[in-house]
Amino acid sequence: MNLSFRALALSASFLMTVQTAAAQPAKDMPASAPSDQTAWTILEDLTTEVGQRLAGSPREAAARDWAVARLKALGFANVRSEPFTITAFVRGAETARLTAPYPQPLHITALGNSVPTPKGGLTAEMVYFPSLDALKAAPAGSLSGKIAYIDNQMRAYQDGSGYGPYGNARRQGAAIASTKGALATVIRSAGTDHNRDPHTGGTNFPAGTKAIPAGAVSAPDADLIARIAARGKPMTVALVLEGYPQPNAPSGNVIADLPGRDPSLPPILLGCHLDSWDLGTGAIDDGAGCAIITAAALRAQQDGKTLRTIRLLWAGSEELGGFGGEAYAKAHAGEPHALAMESDSGADRVWRVQLGLAESNKAVADKVSAALAPLGIVKGQGKPQGGTDVEPIIAAQKLAVIDLDQDATRYFDLHHTPDDTLDKVDPAQLEQNVAAWTAVLKVVANEAGPLSGAN
Amino acid sequence: MNLSFRALALSASFLMTVQTAAAQPAKDMPASAPSDQTAWTILEDLTTEVGQRLAGSPREAAARDWAVARLKALGFANVRSEPFTITAFVRGAETARLTAPYPQPLHITALGNSVPTPKGGLTAEMVYFPSLDALKAAPAGSLSGKIAYIDNQMRAYQDGSGYGPYGNARRQGAAIASTKGALATVIRSAGTDHNRDPHTGGTNFPAGTKAIPAGAVSAPDADLIARIAARGKPMTVALVLEGYPQPNAPSGNVIADLPGRDPSLPPILLGCHLDSWDLGTGAIDDGAGCAIITAAALRAQQDGKTLRTIRLLWAGSEELGGFGGEAYAKAHAGEPHALAMESDSGADRVWRVQLGLAESNKAVADKVSAALAPLGIVKGQGKPQGGTDVEPIIAAQKLAVIDLDQDATRYFDLHHTPDDTLDKVDPAQLEQNVAAWTAVLKVVANEAGPLSGAN
Repeated sequence: MNLSFRALALSASFLMTVQTAAAQPAKDMPASAPSDQTAWTILEDLTTEVGQRLAGSPREAAARDWAVARLKALGFANVRSEPFTITAFVRGAETARLTAPYPQPLHITALGNSVPTPKGGLTAEMVYFPSLDALKAAPAGSLSGKIAYIDNQMRAYQDGSGYGPYGNARRQGAAIASTKGALATVIRSAGTDHNRDPHTGGTNFPAGTKAIPAGAVSAPDADLIARIAARGKPMTVALVLEGYPQPNAPSGNVIADLPGRDPSLPPILLGCHLDSWDLGTGAIDDGAGCAIITAAALRAQQDGKTLRTIRLLWAGSEELGGFGGEAYAKAHAGEPHALAMESDSGADRVWRVQLGLAESNKAVADKVSAALAPLGIVKGQGKPQGGTDVEPIIAAQKLAVIDLDQDATRYFDLHHTPDDTLDKVDPAQLEQNVAAWTAVLKVVANEAGPLSGAN
Repeated sequence: MNLSFRALALSASFLMTVQTAAAQPAKDMPASAPSDQTAWTILEDLTTEVGQRLAGSPREAAARDWAVARLKALGFANVRSEPFTITAFVRGAETARLTAPYPQPLHITALGNSVPTPKGGLTAEMVYFPSLDALKAAPAGSLSGKIAYIDNQMRAYQDGSGYGPYGNARRQGAAIASTKGALATVIRSAGTDHNRDPHTGGTNFPAGTKAIPAGAVSAPDADLIARIAARGKPMTVALVLEGYPQPNAPSGNVIADLPGRDPSLPPILLGCHLDSWDLGTGAIDDGAGCAIITAAALRAQQDGKTLRTIRLLWAGSEELGGFGGEAYAKAHAGEPHALAMESDSGADRVWRVQLGLAESNKAVADKVSAALAPLGIVKGQGKPQGGTDVEPIIAAQKLAVIDLDQDATRYFDLHHTPDDTLDKVDPAQLEQNVAAWTAVLKVVANEAGPLSGAN
């Protein structure tokens, strides 16, 4: 991508909008769909001017300042930062190398909540488990003085559903290995690519479990380890993972409103998260989500205020445990909300809508489906989730929820890696997201009657 | 790729061979083309047991020992290592970060022949040049105290021809910047991917030019720099590149023969290079080449000796300046050779043959073309080069040469990066290479008459 790309991207985005509007006029959208670069500009500027925004770090704080200034400049009202504190993760030096049977460097990254290796690192036998289930079956104490290695090849699916089961080695592996005496845990990255970049992400140590150093190696390194394991050769690894948890780190949510014509009606809540992992620049996770919901909110009110207020939640500290969503639900427990949605699966096109509305809102649901059909979005039969940042308020208030599911086929190639950068975003697909969100907002934010969740 | 991949790969390779043979019997190949895993096994074992083989390093020496043992085990004769010394490159710590206008880490790697930054690194203004030509046009002395940055987006072509012109920023940029007073040079990687991994490779400081630190950043980092340059903001970079040249480092070629029925006839010389850059494991550059030529030589003699001897040259120290090829030409100047070929563009399928044979050898050339046509290989009209490792002996002896051009469309996504690993090799395409080389060898190594170069 070169200097001329930005111009090219903008014109590509423009063309796509025009073509979509011309070929497939949406009933609930104006005949000449507005073509603006709001989403792309937010995303380009955020990834360029701020970059990584690790939860609880000074860069996340810089991102909050940036966000408040940008949302005010875009005309939002009541723009504010709502602070809270978290136990953050501070990344340190991280290296690994096989010292036996063959000397080979391994590309590794620490997982969030990992504790540091001893000064100078640790060198130990690494025991290969082909899966998390195999680790679970290891006898108690059998890993004393050893490093546990968990293989676990995640697969790519359009609906991203591989992340749940295959991600468990990352979420649970270190804690399980710890209970069996392991000194440290290394996993195959929870990802679907073949790049040499490992995927970070949080691991969890439940209360009572001793935290141990935990890291993930890239897919090619995991392939190497699997080949050596297949030869039956014992492996020794020299491991340095100096990252550590930091209690009482400052974080916060950024909240902004586009007031509606009737302030007495509960608002529509749109969520994304502002924090990102530190390896990349948080373009697809989740700068894109914040860019999409913000541009769509503005576009929904471009020709005049919607009936209901549209509220944005750019949440903090999603990656380390969904702290921003919990803080929002707690701080705003006393305010009624009408419906919540979240964008947090990248920037590729929306392919499916999942509707979580009460039977009494069937007419609203039908209008949403009809508004999305011209954009090539199919109605799914699953239960919408809403995303980590809005789930606590959805659960607390039993809110209506709509998921606009993005194509996740290549999302986990990039997720939590250094490769999460702006060049991975297709401006035309980003624009399709904005168009889809706008179409939904024009229905739900103009609905006068009560909106209720499915159950 | 998981544990079962090896088995899968082998069966895929087997199936491909059977299908090719069944669907498109080659006139000069046996009706049941032999299906063996020799190439895959060499490549898997070399990348697993040795890994990176940086020219002049202990790992290159380990690779020579491995190669001698493996070639003897495969039945080659006269297997020996022929030592020479080079000025090697020893990689050190390498980091870069923008400190202004925005704090952003940059993924960088040093180029071969770079000299180290001062102790503690250097921090300086970085001046953006959109191309090597723009740098050339900068006034003398205008870069004093500054870091030169050269942008230069390489494009992917099937014939790999982007590498010549777009690679010049890497080869020449640092020397040109040095003559204008630059403290250091950073370039956009000479590559065609969008991964966060920079591409290393050699840069050249002609005699009389002061060597300066030189590095390459990954494509996403280069995109970031281009975006900032487009905003007209001055950039400051903190640069640490501790790699340094090391004179008198031991290197060497590995040579092995499959004797022919008539030892008085000059041999067919097949080249590849054993050394690799240190960031990856040298799977496509050039473990694959050594695997292909070796498997093909064995397959060409599977049903009995060829008339002529087939000689393998697994050259050392190609990457830092073609030292192995020069050493071979010097050591073997007194021995006549019949024809030379090289495999050094990865492991993707051969799509074209370029024939460099004298007019008197037209019948041989026609037989080669006919033997390759069933494998989907077209005859090109260009002048074959032979590759860095055999070019010196070709030039010295005006040898006949045949190029089997591999599809290079994705080669420069991986070339000289940490991503040059075994998983990037498609076993079916590797097998097509072996089949193509075997087909050529069955013609040229059984040709009794003299073989001569085109001019």
